[in-house]
Parts: sequence; C-alpha cells; structure tokens
Amino acid sequence: MVLARPSAPREEISWSGWGDPAQASALPDTLRDLLRDTLGVRPGATPPPAATDLELVPPRLAAAAQDELRATLGADHVHSDHDSRARHARGKSTIDLLQLRAAGPVTAPDAVLTPGSHDEILAVLELCSRRGVAVVPFGGGTSVVGGLTPETGGFAGLVALDTRRLNALVALDDESRLAVLEPGLRGPEAEALLAALGYTLGHFPQSFEYATLGGFAAARSSGQASAGYGRFDDRVLALRLATPAGTLTLGRAPKSAAGPDLRQLVLGSEGTLGVITELTVTVTPAPDRRVYEGWRLPDFARGAAVLRRLAQDGPAATVLRLSDEAETALNLARPHQLTANGDTTRGGGPPNHGCLAILGWEGEATEVDRRRSATAELLRAADGELEPGAGEAWEAGRYRAPYMRDALLDAGALVETLETVTFWSGLPALYAAVGDALREALTRQGTPPAVLCHISHVYPAGASLYFTVACAQLRDPVAQWRAAKAAAATAILDAGGSISHHHGVGADHRDPYALEIGPLGVALLHAVKRTLDPAGILNPGILLPVLRAP
Amino acid sequence: MVLARPSAPREEISWSGWGDPAQASALPDTLRDLLRDTLGVRPGATPPPAATDLELVPPRLAAAAQDELRATLGADHVHSDHDSRARHARGKSTIDLLQLRAAGPVTAPDAVLTPGSHDEILAVLELCSRRGVAVVPFGGGTSVVGGLTPETGGFAGLVALDTRRLNALVALDDESRLAVLEPGLRGPEAEALLAALGYTLGHFPQSFEYATLGGFAAARSSGQASAGYGRFDDRVLALRLATPAGTLTLGRAPKSAAGPDLRQLVLGSEGTLGVITELTVTVTPAPDRRVYEGWRLPDFARGAAVLRRLAQDGPAATVLRLSDEAETALNLARPHQLTANGDTTRGGGPPNHGCLAILGWEGEATEVDRRRSATAELLRAADGELEPGAGEAWEAGRYRAPYMRDALLDAGALVETLETVTFWSGLPALYAAVGDALREALTRQGTPPAVLCHISHVYPAGASLYFTVACAQLRDPVAQWRAAKAAAATAILDAGGSISHHHGVGADHRDPYALEIGPLGVALLHAVKRTLDPAGILNPGILLPVLRAP
Repeated sequence: MVLARPSAPREEISWSGWGDPAQASALPDTLRDLLRDTLGVRPGATPPPAATDLELVPPRLAAAAQDELRATLGADHVHSDHDSRARHARGKSTIDLLQLRAAGPVTAPDAVLTPGSHDEILAVLELCSRRGVAVVPFGGGTSVVGGLTPETGGFAGLVALDTRRLNALVALDDESRLAVLEPGLRGPEAEALLAALGYTLGHFPQSFEYATLGGFAAARSSGQASAGYGRFDDRVLALRLATPAGTLTLGRAPKSAAGPDLRQLVLGSEGTLGVITELTVTVTPAPDRRVYEGWRLPDFARGAAVLRRLAQDGPAATVLRLSDEAETALNLARPHQLTANGDTTRGGGPPNHGCLAILGWEGEATEVDRRRSATAELLRAADGELEPGAGEAWEAGRYRAPYMRDALLDAGALVETLETVTFWSGLPALYAAVGDALREALTRQGTPPAVLCHISHVYPAGASLYFTVACAQLRDPVAQWRAAKAAAATAILDAGGSISHHHGVGADHRDPYALEIGPLGVALLHAVKRTLDPAGILNPGILLPVLRAP
Repeated sequence: MVLARPSAPREEISWSGWGDPAQASALPDTLRDLLRDTLGVRPGATPPPAATDLELVPPRLAAAAQDELRATLGADHVHSDHDSRARHARGKSTIDLLQLRAAGPVTAPDAVLTPGSHDEILAVLELCSRRGVAVVPFGGGTSVVGGLTPETGGFAGLVALDTRRLNALVALDDESRLAVLEPGLRGPEAEALLAALGYTLGHFPQSFEYATLGGFAAARSSGQASAGYGRFDDRVLALRLATPAGTLTLGRAPKSAAGPDLRQLVLGSEGTLGVITELTVTVTPAPDRRVYEGWRLPDFARGAAVLRRLAQDGPAATVLRLSDEAETALNLARPHQLTANGDTTRGGGPPNHGCLAILGWEGEATEVDRRRSATAELLRAADGELEPGAGEAWEAGRYRAPYMRDALLDAGALVETLETVTFWSGLPALYAAVGDALREALTRQGTPPAVLCHISHVYPAGASLYFTVACAQLRDPVAQWRAAKAAAATAILDAGGSISHHHGVGADHRDPYALEIGPLGVALLHAVKRTLDPAGILNPGILLPVLRAP
C-alpha cells in the first residue's frame, strides 16, 4: 500500500526562528548602518531565549485523557515534554516569533500527538470530541497567519496533531499523471520521492523546505513557479479527510458536473473541518531545462502590463514576478547603495532605476528556448533590459528571506510580509491603497517604514501583490504590527482585494475574512463545520469565529 | 448599469421537443429501415399532442399567494395560463419528452414568474419561503437530468422562476478580460453581445442555442470546445446569488487563499441554494481562425492515447473528441451503410473502420497553423489518416443531434445519452462497464440496443465518456429507460467514475450522486441548504434528497 517513504529522518525546524539554525544569516554591518540611518532601527531588541528557558503555560490536559490518548496511539506517540510543546507552540509569523521572544509564559499545546494512520486520526478526533479537547492539526508549522494558535477557552486542553508520520508516496498513476501522497511530507521529501520516478509537483513556495503537503492543500498554497505549474489547490484532484463525524472521500475525476465541488470546501479549510490524510495530486514530468532571467522594466506599470500580456496571451512562462521600484532598488543594490524608499542616489553608486522582473521557463529544452526568445522580444519592445546575473541570484536566494527576517528582528527591525490579490483592472488602486495604509499606520506610530512590493503570481484575469514592510521596532512590536496590519486589511477590503492570496486566513485574518465573505458566507461555513465537527474541537477560532455547538 | 441587451426578442423553444419546430428533422427512410432491421424498431409510438391538448394537473396555488406575487412583480410577470405552464412543465431529457407524449395529466408549475431584478427575486424567495411554495429556477429549460421537476409534496404549490428578463451584459473589463453578465442570456445572445466587443466565451455545449448562462453555471456545463476554452465553471470568477436567507456575493480575484472557495459551492448547486443573478466570467478575444478536422485512428485505445498525449503535452487544441468504432461507423456511414453495432460490411460500401477523432483549433492564425501541423505529425505517427470533410460535417451538425432524437422518438426508437468522467487509467474499464451494463439491461428487456460512445472532453488527468443508446421502444419506454439508466449508474460508480461530467445531477442522478459523495457529503450539503434555504423551497428533491427544515 506504500510505494516509498523519505530515506532520511526529518530535520527539525528552528523552534524560535526559520529553518536550519546552521544556515542563519548574519546582518552585514552596512545594512545595519543603513537601517539605523534610514529607518531609525536601533539595537536592543530581545533575542529569542534558549529553548530550555522558554516558559510555557502549564499543561492542563487531564491525566485520563492523556492515558486514553496513549492507549490509542501508543505511549511513543503522545509527547508532553517541554521540547515537543515548545516546538508546536507557534508558527512562523513575525508576531509568533516576537511572542516567543517576549517575557512571560507562552501558550502551547498540552501534548503533541503523532498518529500513524487515517484510522488513528479518526480515533483521536472521536476521543477529543468526546472529551472536549481542542485539536490543532500541525504539518510543517510554517503558518504566517496565526494558523497554529487556536482559541482554547472552554476546552479541556489543546493537543497538536502532527502529521509527520503520514509521509508515504502511496501510489503513482503514470497514465493519468497522478500521485497519491500523504500530508506529512515536506516539500523536498515529496520532490525527492517523485523525482526518482521522473516527476515534479512544481510547487515551490518560500516555505518549501519545511512546509508539508497537507498544509499546502489546507491553506491553498501557491508557489513561486505558479505561472507554469499552477497553484497547489489546482493540483489536488482527490483527497481523504478525517473528521470527527467520519471520513469524507472526494474526487473521482479531474472535473465533474456532479454537484458542488466539495474538494474546494476542504481546500482552504485550514484544519477547521478535518485532517487531510491523503491527497491525489497531478504531477508533471521533471523538466529538461530550467532557466531564470532578470529583466529591468522602465516602471511598475509597464512591467505589470508585460506580465499581464504574458499571462493572457503567452508565451507561457513558469515563473513571472515583478518588483516595484522600491524593492528593485533593494534587490539590485550593493549594500552601500541601500536606501529605504527606492531613492538610491545618495549611496553614491549608479541609480537602480526601474523595476526588476524575474522570468523563468521550465520544461522540454526546445520549447523553453522558443518561449524564452519570443518573450525576450516582447520585453525589449517594452524597453526591458536583461539584468545579468539577476535570474541566478533570485534562484540562489529564493528560500532565504525568512532567515534574513530573523537577523533583522535581532537587529531591532520589525519586518513582515503580507499579500493580496485582485483582478488586473483593480491592481494599481490596490497597490496604492495598501502601501499608503502601511506607511500611514506605521508613520503615525513614529516608525516610518520601508514598504516594498512585488507581483508574485499572475493569472489571465488578475495578479497578487506581495508586500514587505520594515521599520524600527517599538517597545511593543506586536501591537505595533497589529495596528499596521489592521490598516492594511481595511485597505485591501475597501479596494476590492482578497485578504490573502496564498498565506491563508488563520487567526490573523479571521475578522477581515468574515467581512470578505459576508455573514451569510460565515453562516454557511459554520453550518458545514457543525456537520463535520459537532463539538467544534478543530482549530477553534481559526478561519472562523469560534463556533459553539448549538 | 447595463452595457447592452439582446436586440431581438427570444424565440421560444419547442415545448414538446427540441429547438425551433421549423428545423425539425425527418428521418430518412433508409435509416428507418435500418432501425427496423437491426434494432427491431417498429412504428406506432405516441407522438406529442398539440400544446393546447396537453392535459396539465390543475394549479393549486392559493389565490392570496398569486395576488401577493402579482403585487410583488406586477401582473404582467405572473403567468398562470396553460401555455406558460406547459412550456415550463418539463426539461429535455428523453423521459421528459416521453412523459409529455404519455396519456394523462402532466405535472407543471402552478405559475411562471418572470422577475426583472435581483431584488425582485429576493422578494419572491422571501414570499415563497413564508408561504411554503416550492420554486424551480428556470433558465433555458434544457435540463436532461430531470432538473426541472422538483418534488412538491408538502408544499403549497410550485412556481417556475424564469430568469429571461435578467439578460443584460452589465459590464466589460478589457484589462482583466472579464464580462459581467446576467443569467437569463442564452448562449447565442451572450456571444452576440460579446462579439460586438471582440470577445467570446468559447462555451458551445450541444444545448448552446437555447440554454442560458445561469444554467451553464448552476449545472457546471462543459462545451464542445472545452479543450481550448475550458469548462464554464472554470470561467466563473465572481457571482451573486439570491437566496431565501439573503444575498451571497462571492469572488474578488481569480484565485485566493481566503478560505474554502465558496464559488465552487454555488456552481453545481442546480438552483437548490439560490438563484444566480449575476456572473463575472472570463472572456477570450474572438479567434482569427477556426479550423476543424476529422482524423481516422486505428482503434479507440490508440485514439485515446493520442488525445491523452495532446491534453498532457500539447500542442494545445480547442476541440478534441474521439468516437468509438460503433459511433464512427454511424458518423461516417452513408445511410445505406448504417448498422447498429459498427458492423458496416453488410451495407455493401467500404467498411468504416477505426475511430474518428474531431480536432479543432481556434485563435490567432499563425498559432493555429503551428499547432495544427504539429498535431498532424503526431496523428500520422499514430497511423491516423485525415478524413476529408469530417471536420466540416461535424461543425455543420454540432447542435443538430437533439432534433434527430425527436424524429427517432416519433419513429418508435428509444434514444438517450448519458455521460461520465474519470481519470485516464480508469477510462477503459469505465467504457467497458457502462457499455456492458446498457447492453445487458436493455437486452434483458428484449430490446438489444446500439451503444455508441465518444470521448467528449479531455483533461491532463482524465476524460469524459459520452454514450448514446438507441433501441426499440417498449410499451412503457420510461420504465424501460429508467432500468437501463440505473444499471449504467451502478456501473459508473462501481468503476470509479463520476455520475455526470456535464449534464448535472437533477432528479435523475440524485440517488447515485448521494452514493458518490457519501452520507457525510450529503449531510454537509444539507447543512448548507438549511442555512441558505431554511424552508427548503428551492428545487426540493433536485440534487439532494428532500430536506425538511429541522
């Protein structure tokens, strides 16, 4: 029943920051000076404590519940030690990281469960429903929207349900180009298993190295190569969901006219309806050739017009991204040229004018070359210039940004990202509104920020905007960022955008999400939740306001 | 608020058969003889009565309800005359048509409403909820799955809510390539409005000439050019739904990670959750060139392999269809060659061996030529031969089959179609199982059938199968077909297929659909329905078992 599993045991992600602690970045002195000079960033931020020093809220799960969990899963798969709890206490949003650095005890699951099968997960959900214990499904732990910190008031404790043992490549269907995969596989694990058979998922979000397939599906992830490979949710053609009310098995065909597409109700449900225990996803033959290039376009509007043209009429590309002027200045700058707002003249070097686009093509070699050269013509016609080395630099750094964030937090900067999406005609207004809201909200607090933006994902009908914000930390950086984030959320909704393009809703976007889908939308999701999770144990307060059973 | 509406008033569809009565087909004598010789089809079937002779079940809507409806919509928009009721009594399935031909009174809505706006529809739904009057949303009236005959037991009557007055092109967004359209537009009306602006929807199902956009969306229609233009549901990026519980407005972007995709809950809901009152759909620039070709492949398996290759790796095509041997023999035959089961030798002409594929390319001329010639190479490598005139013949006849059905019913044949879809690896077994089930179920009744099949829609991961069945009518042809259909449905589910690829669920597929999504799937759709339609007035018994309010 299993084709293969990863050959090596999983390396743990840093409990207090991003990734592999051995790969942590140091901040160059020149950048430190620049942050001080332009944003007023001063040292003195609280560093993360040693893991053993992290104070956790005492566990409150009743001994009888723990005993029953041990009887269900085996004692080896119920972890209530300090380290396990600490490692499942938070996701990877800046707020999560700041909370781990703050004084005082941190909330954490009372226990971490590592079930080994769909049936064991069903048993856990039944047990927890009966005992009123809240459950947070836990994949890679990389949520950046508070998706791992449910509200547990009124519950008899919280357990994290870690899917790491569900890590099989179950089956491969060459003819239909489908793989059946378990949710606990991390991105590189799944890619390695599929590469051995000649395939790729083509799904490479920034969290790729640590996030899991279950999370990709549950939170509707989109990867950096989405222009060519599509979003992860578009790849999911069948799935199995373990819920407190039983098993839901969905998907018999790529598309069907048999009623509403219930797969689309599970995708994006973020662990509030059940635990995804198996995914059938489309796979693509591994490409012969991969090429990434950087092109400098005259300005953001002309660059966006080129991306739109490519998304609508081709030639198709695999990666299509476009930084705005501010982000371009930072990306292309040598450190001594860095400034906060795209004014690169005072550094003394040549100005980093215009906007950098990253384009990539993957596939059969002749076809890659054909599309690449046809696209080069279009880019030149739009006054684009090839930027030597920029494509390679992007590739080398494509998963590095979260490491840099840790170093920036250490240096006293507040840095975070957020994203949105809308139709092309609304994009300029959305871009302006969100940038203005962030600048205004942080300037009002005395910390004028640098706001960088890029178009990260394109569709024929629209595109996403991905914002990076940096400013000096105030004494309470969590409150500082929450105020800015709230202003951005209001701007997004007012400008017609969606509250998230690929980060998801979690706890952080719950209120604007409710505004986005309206009270009737919330009511119908509550009705669905009540059906699948009558006791409301799954991720209470994530995605939707906490639902009490009627 | 409105860009344009159709310039001509709508022609009514034949109340008792397909389309424009002036275009009705007569059956060639040679075909009549063939049906007699091969399938035992004998004259003597009951023809449809004159419209005025059709006996309808007496209306039972209370006068007070009618008065209130008139006060809400205006007396001109509440139609309780015999002709209006007769024209909304049935859809266009063979069972529908046979029931109109049978003796005895026919059920029909008590009144037909033609509201003129979203707000009027909200008012009707409120009124009917309060009074316990069932509502059947009515677009083009072309359902072939019993989607227009809800169960009205326990309700204080039934009204048809005809969307014909919601027929505006509301807005066009050139930059995002989106059109905002109202649901009552028929296919050709929408195409004409968009063609004037340089666009097409590319949505051309067999029902194109009479079906409406609201129906395309509510029943997840897929058109003959789906390989190039996609399914209709894939084009719907935003929509507005009038429900008894209020208005649901969904869709702010092509894709989003803001929770489950609630649009996908409305698409395919077949009027059970609300009435779609506005659709925002992607539009495509009208193509410069359209070319259709017929190619003869050696057999169904090799033909399917070519279609799969094209769907997975390209070159992209706009139309991709493949008839099996039996259908090919019929399609390519001159009438004197026709036989029921692909044995074409006894007609005396050359045998119509192999399988006919129809391929089409639409778009920019150079690109069409490039893809067409690259595809020709692939087809020749698979021992394909161009079949002169077959592409043009397919184009000329693409909307004609339903007319032929009327003539066949008149001649005493029972003829109907059904479709399913699965992944490529399961397609051969599904093909065999459904064909066997149909042959066995009808032969057991003494009427061995001709079963023809084609692949009508392809995806990288799978394809649909579209079956046409013809045999002699028994005395009770409705029961005769229901038995065959039940056998086919069981075979579809057992072989892993979906109960419908593009016809929808309606009343006819309700029970197998419940098996397909399982009791938990039904329970969650009931929960959604209870939220949006607490009194259960919308299409009771369509899609789902009748739901009584708790």
